[in-house]
Amino acid sequence: MAYRDEQLSEEKVFKDPVHRYIHVRDQVIWDLIGTPEFQRLRRIRQLGTCYLTFHGAEHSRFNHSLGVYEIVRRIISNFKDRPNWDEKERLLCLAAALLHDLGHGPFSHSFEKVFKLDHEDFTQAILLGDTKVNEVLSKVDKSFPKQVADVINKTYQNKLVVSLISSQIDADRMDYLQRDAYFTGVSYGHFDMERILRVMRPMEDQVVVKESGMHAVEDYIMSRYQMYWQVYFHPVTRSAEVILSKILHRAKELYDQGYRFKLEPTHFLSFFKGEPTLSEYLGLDESIALYYFQMWMQEDDEILSDLCDRFVNRRLFKYIEFNPNQQMSEWMELYKLFQKAGIHPDYYLVVDSSSDLPYDFYRPGEEGERLPIHLLQPNQELKELSRLSEIVESISGKKRTDHKLYIPQDMLEGMSNRSKTKKRIMEILYG
Amino acid sequence: MAYRDEQLSEEKVFKDPVHRYIHVRDQVIWDLIGTPEFQRLRRIRQLGTCYLTFHGAEHSRFNHSLGVYEIVRRIISNFKDRPNWDEKERLLCLAAALLHDLGHGPFSHSFEKVFKLDHEDFTQAILLGDTKVNEVLSKVDKSFPKQVADVINKTYQNKLVVSLISSQIDADRMDYLQRDAYFTGVSYGHFDMERILRVMRPMEDQVVVKESGMHAVEDYIMSRYQMYWQVYFHPVTRSAEVILSKILHRAKELYDQGYRFKLEPTHFLSFFKGEPTLSEYLGLDESIALYYFQMWMQEDDEILSDLCDRFVNRRLFKYIEFNPNQQMSEWMELYKLFQKAGIHPDYYLVVDSSSDLPYDFYRPGEEGERLPIHLLQPNQELKELSRLSEIVESISGKKRTDHKLYIPQDMLEGMSNRSKTKKRIMEILYG
Amino acid sequence: MAYRDEQLSEEKVFKDPVHRYIHVRDQVIWDLIGTPEFQRLRRIRQLGTCYLTFHGAEHSRFNHSLGVYEIVRRIISNFKDRPNWDEKERLLCLAAALLHDLGHGPFSHSFEKVFKLDHEDFTQAILLGDTKVNEVLSKVDKSFPKQVADVINKTYQNKLVVSLISSQIDADRMDYLQRDAYFTGVSYGHFDMERILRVMRPMEDQVVVKESGMHAVEDYIMSRYQMYWQVYFHPVTRSAEVILSKILHRAKELYDQGYRFKLEPTHFLSFFKGEPTLSEYLGLDESIALYYFQMWMQEDDEILSDLCDRFVNRRLFKYIEFNPNQQMSEWMELYKLFQKAGIHPDYYLVVDSSSDLPYDFYRPGEEGERLPIHLLQPNQELKELSRLSEIVESISGKKRTDHKLYIPQDMLEGMSNRSKTKKRIMEILYG
Amino acid sequence: MAYRDEQLSEEKVFKDPVHRYIHVRDQVIWDLIGTPEFQRLRRIRQLGTCYLTFHGAEHSRFNHSLGVYEIVRRIISNFKDRPNWDEKERLLCLAAALLHDLGHGPFSHSFEKVFKLDHEDFTQAILLGDTKVNEVLSKVDKSFPKQVADVINKTYQNKLVVSLISSQIDADRMDYLQRDAYFTGVSYGHFDMERILRVMRPMEDQVVVKESGMHAVEDYIMSRYQMYWQVYFHPVTRSAEVILSKILHRAKELYDQGYRFKLEPTHFLSFFKGEPTLSEYLGLDESIALYYFQMWMQEDDEILSDLCDRFVNRRLFKYIEFNPNQQMSEWMELYKLFQKAGIHPDYYLVVDSSSDLPYDFYRPGEEGERLPIHLLQPNQELKELSRLSEIVESISGKKRTDHKLYIPQDMLEGMSNRSKTKKRIMEILYG
Repeated sequence: MAYRDEQLSEEKVFKDPVHRYIHVRDQVIWDLIGTPEFQRLRRIRQLGTCYLTFHGAEHSRFNHSLGVYEIVRRIISNFKDRPNWDEKERLLCLAAALLHDLGHGPFSHSFEKVFKLDHEDFTQAILLGDTKVNEVLSKVDKSFPKQVADVINKTYQNKLVVSLISSQIDADRMDYLQRDAYFTGVSYGHFDMERILRVMRPMEDQVVVKESGMHAVEDYIMSRYQMYWQVYFHPVTRSAEVILSKILHRAKELYDQGYRFKLEPTHFLSFFKGEPTLSEYLGLDESIALYYFQMWMQEDDEILSDLCDRFVNRRLFKYIEFNPNQQMSEWMELYKLFQKAGIHPDYYLVVDSSSDLPYDFYRPGEEGERLPIHLLQPNQELKELSRLSEIVESISGKKRTDHKLYIPQDMLEGMSNRSKTKKRIMEILYG
Repeated sequence: MAYRDEQLSEEKVFKDPVHRYIHVRDQVIWDLIGTPEFQRLRRIRQLGTCYLTFHGAEHSRFNHSLGVYEIVRRIISNFKDRPNWDEKERLLCLAAALLHDLGHGPFSHSFEKVFKLDHEDFTQAILLGDTKVNEVLSKVDKSFPKQVADVINKTYQNKLVVSLISSQIDADRMDYLQRDAYFTGVSYGHFDMERILRVMRPMEDQVVVKESGMHAVEDYIMSRYQMYWQVYFHPVTRSAEVILSKILHRAKELYDQGYRFKLEPTHFLSFFKGEPTLSEYLGLDESIALYYFQMWMQEDDEILSDLCDRFVNRRLFKYIEFNPNQQMSEWMELYKLFQKAGIHPDYYLVVDSSSDLPYDFYRPGEEGERLPIHLLQPNQELKELSRLSEIVESISGKKRTDHKLYIPQDMLEGMSNRSKTKKRIMEILYG
Repeated sequence: MAYRDEQLSEEKVFKDPVHRYIHVRDQVIWDLIGTPEFQRLRRIRQLGTCYLTFHGAEHSRFNHSLGVYEIVRRIISNFKDRPNWDEKERLLCLAAALLHDLGHGPFSHSFEKVFKLDHEDFTQAILLGDTKVNEVLSKVDKSFPKQVADVINKTYQNKLVVSLISSQIDADRMDYLQRDAYFTGVSYGHFDMERILRVMRPMEDQVVVKESGMHAVEDYIMSRYQMYWQVYFHPVTRSAEVILSKILHRAKELYDQGYRFKLEPTHFLSFFKGEPTLSEYLGLDESIALYYFQMWMQEDDEILSDLCDRFVNRRLFKYIEFNPNQQMSEWMELYKLFQKAGIHPDYYLVVDSSSDLPYDFYRPGEEGERLPIHLLQPNQELKELSRLSEIVESISGKKRTDHKLYIPQDMLEGMSNRSKTKKRIMEILYG
Repeated sequence: MAYRDEQLSEEKVFKDPVHRYIHVRDQVIWDLIGTPEFQRLRRIRQLGTCYLTFHGAEHSRFNHSLGVYEIVRRIISNFKDRPNWDEKERLLCLAAALLHDLGHGPFSHSFEKVFKLDHEDFTQAILLGDTKVNEVLSKVDKSFPKQVADVINKTYQNKLVVSLISSQIDADRMDYLQRDAYFTGVSYGHFDMERILRVMRPMEDQVVVKESGMHAVEDYIMSRYQMYWQVYFHPVTRSAEVILSKILHRAKELYDQGYRFKLEPTHFLSFFKGEPTLSEYLGLDESIALYYFQMWMQEDDEILSDLCDRFVNRRLFKYIEFNPNQQMSEWMELYKLFQKAGIHPDYYLVVDSSSDLPYDFYRPGEEGERLPIHLLQPNQELKELSRLSEIVESISGKKRTDHKLYIPQDMLEGMSNRSKTKKRIMEILYG
């Protein structure tokens, strides 16, 4: 039998707290799960620094990737024998679902920003490069790795397949909303996925949802909205991100300045230089990063060691609302106050805007964005969701930017008491 | 106001997926949570290698410690104004609950066995030594650290206080059963804790449960029993433990033999020598351990590098049932087979017995064990649980030993085909 | 001790699937639960005919009333020692919460509409009339029954007390959303009540919610919205309501015409006459109503017996969308078609509009409506919810009217085939 | 297409709180659900008087019947293509599952005992008699009604089919445990049904469970055990049953004595005479019964009216432990005390034994019992569960008889104070 069609002698299951069981019957999928590149996702947390806000959020991308696979498996088992669905795309969909996050690195958001990397490039590199994952995929067919890469890259010709994992209501989002809600323990993030799966229909170039399922879809969008503000944009998580970014900035800066690290930062060198190879990239996971952050707590550079200590021991910056248009003079005053106190404001006085973050809850119109959600009406016409749902319309495309100023309260306390701005901030911080 | 009585200006809550919210009002508790020693528990998984079997089991001891604190908080808020309860013990109970697992190291079970350490000694050392935790506790009262240490050590004079965190139905167990069930996703581990808390009563030297709550307690004991076999003793988890132990053995052996490591194993040296100081002990968490395991994959020693690769990339040993009394000749045959193939049987042919593991589901009689559960009858007499419950009686004190033989299937495949035992095993493994 | 302050020797609990436990300590509350008028609520379903759509929705108003009591109990136990809160109002709040739905009759909506009754009048009558409930309340204080009646009637002088059970986010709504979701099994209706309770604050004339809880409140409003369309306005439930109303209409009409019932409709006579006394009203619960509907299946009047058979055996009318402004000529055509076929169109051709139904999900501005939700900002100012929340703003005050035409498909099938409208409808019905 | 094979144009689903969705594709099943005999089950509660103890337990046998159908549907969709499974039995299994409880009457237990009826006889009569259910089944095949009846009667030749709905681990029990737990809200009754379904295997004459699923089965047995003592045998529920039986006894006795009822008890006459016809039997559901109980509250016979008032208004008897072997003299003393007070002891002094109740949690050996559970070992041999599980062994076959004496506390209070037994009882009752 062709490797593509090989089935395990007995179905394997993974016990999953979100989907109850994850079912694997294909030998190819089983082999992919066993590769080092996929197992590495166990050492990358799904929500980065969020565990410092919600202590339950310690789950890894390995978890999530299995979940996305399982949702796609359920969707396409419903598609069987429906028009527009080509059963030959089955394995491709499953593999792409499983592997779509393969290129994520440790604390992706900060690492990508500081070192100017893109995890999607690395996903492509892993799929197409000299890896075990590529080896397994190639056994299916020489062109199979490229097909998987194209699906994930949204360039595959069959857009229906692409939309399963990259649309406004794809398996990726349906898994992470539920999973992140489960592990953080928040009450949001629940919606009737079983109903949505039942009313999904394959069309030529996308998955659509029968109009009778509109309220379930609205509920899903609302879950996104709530998770966005309650979890993904939580200011405490962002405080940890701020510190993390500053650690990476400082380490790179020191390296650029020729600083002699007590311990050679071997795993970081290629990142500092800006061109990690694939194997260097894969070699840096969150356990390695946390090893270095702990080592750097012993460095002579006070900024680096202080920031690492803050991150490792969760001594985060405090935050206050900040309006860049109206409060620049205050910011200037603080900047000088910090300078006078010998505290480097570039590292300790940080404005962070939620709009920098890569989440959106629903944007039907923006170019280059994910496919909007189309509802299939009884008369077989398609209509974009926000044109039928007032609730979705009310939030679609709106970006609520939220600026906050992050500062170390402990350091601020030690500074000159003459500053009005300082006084005002201290009052806010002490409630 | 005395530090002991200081309250936060506003109650702080942690969102917890198991207990919904964890409530903190005491400044002392808040300060303890903020210490580096307590934050370090975020870098120690609650269930060690279990995440390699149940992918959801990635939660840390930090999680669990907050949970135990919360349960004790709820129990003693019910005790208020009841006879036998001294409200002055309140803070002591809360602190002991929070800190009872402070001395756990990375993958505790294997590390303790190989390096002959005891995490309880380190808990004592952290409480009484030169640490931030000790600093906070000492601010309450010079004798407070010792009192907390005594409660955790079960030597505190008020046995009622001790029993809250060390008995057969203490807050420790009630939390981990529910938490481990939640994160693994198994259906076991649920019981009606709210009812048990409602029927708990303080007696002079222990917490007892009103007889009307017996069925809820039975259900709790059954949860233990199920979790024991379904989760804690899962043979795949034990396979990972076997490999982990062998890694540590091998590394120590190499060190003892004067092997030159490519990368000096700085964090391990004191463990190899057998006498880590407190700060050396605290310096080795699971991120550090995983860093070394990944480094050692590059070592020249084939056994160490292979074992580390197996652990990191989850290429575990397979297992078969093994009866040491009847199958020694088979074992001998295999031993020689391995030797002949140049594969070191001490590292690759491992018998593991569940009875080595430190769990029990209910043992009322054994000396030195935790306090058995006593039911308070309507006539105010106490009766030990297993004397009233047939179900509990049926499992109490029984140790079901379960021996398994762990072997690398891939290596076995390459060996001589003449061995009958090998053939038999291969047949079992291929089902 | 005054009866008002009497406590049960031991707290009583009811196991509740929604709130886990319902706790009763006050003798007065215990005695109220034991009255025949309160026990009668076991024989009135919470959701009327909804069980014919969602088979799980068989729960009674007894259930819900206990739930509202429990929520108020929790809210005011949080209020203790806060400004604006007068602990002396405690028992009044609990009693009003427990008894607020006491006047509901069987299938309230239809009965009230057909017989022109108002359950709120009967609630007042039960509280103030010659009943066991009144007897218990009077033992507290001669004026206590009137106070409870005033709270439920929203005329009590302390508006804070009123708002606990009659506002846009009162205990009544918080209970029924969760309870109805639980029993129907739909995924909506969940929100973080524990968080909302934590951020509720008593003000002079209302309960408000701290702004930090806004997202939890948004989620609650969304739950209302979803339950509204998915459950409360479900067209199948409305179909059953349509039939029920027509049964009552027909029976009354027959009575007015002097029709001789085979079985004297004793329990209905006073309703037909339009002036049931309190004891007549209380004597007609859903078991009695169902007895009569089953008896009427044997009546000679074909319309009454057919409608009763339809209701009892769930042979409901089918429905199609209907726009009264554009489809009047179609309706006229059908009307004549029915007449020609000898089928009384007043009973079998029914237009029903959702806007007749007594639910709203959020209307801040309408006069005479329940108090809108106010958020308490950090600067201690109050702001109405829809001014801070775009999502709530998008749905607030909007009444989505939805007209449907209900018809018996089986009867339509037998009619002349020349009608275009009939053909069109049959096509829709057969999908 | 043959009626047997007819499929609905679109799958219908019922939202179910326990199984999420119940799926129907067969026209036959859809038609059966629509029959009056099946709809009647909406008017029979699943747990009889249990709602007077657990207020959530208001769910009907209609609910449960759909649930059993759904579980069988899932089991046999797993059986497809397995050895020993004959797909031609599919519709028979589904129909038998759906209809297995069709013959239940109102408050089955008490009615059956007092009127010496057996609901199983009526199930047979409904399937084979002049009913709509029979009409639908006969359309499949003339012999189909008899086949369904045989499966439910356990006399069908294919014992595998029988075991799906009548064994120690059949769909009937798996549904009611979960459903009754859900609606009462107790924490018991949960087990991993999904896992059990996955490891069920069809054998020649029964369904067996792979040994690897033993712990899930143990957990199921424990759920039975807990539900048994916590819910099904709850003494308050039994108190309501006692009163209900006494009402029926009294009404029959009065009828036998020629008592003139104010309202002719039409629906009861054939029951009093001992030979209800099928249509008379079907005509008496719980709404009818409750109608009469409320009418009888007005009867002149004091015993009948008092007992009805107690039942309707939940003024139940209190209970104390009672040992018939040791306490007969006490009982005699009470008997005389009641007689002297003019209170009929046959109605007001009732010993009730749990062993009279028709539940068992696991009895492998008794003749005429349901099939025990067999585990399928890796070597393909079968072993009875209690031989492999110590826990199950500990409870199997044991009947814990529990006798209680039920008495009206209010009446006892009014009696002579000289009786020692009375004093003792009053002390117990007042705790």
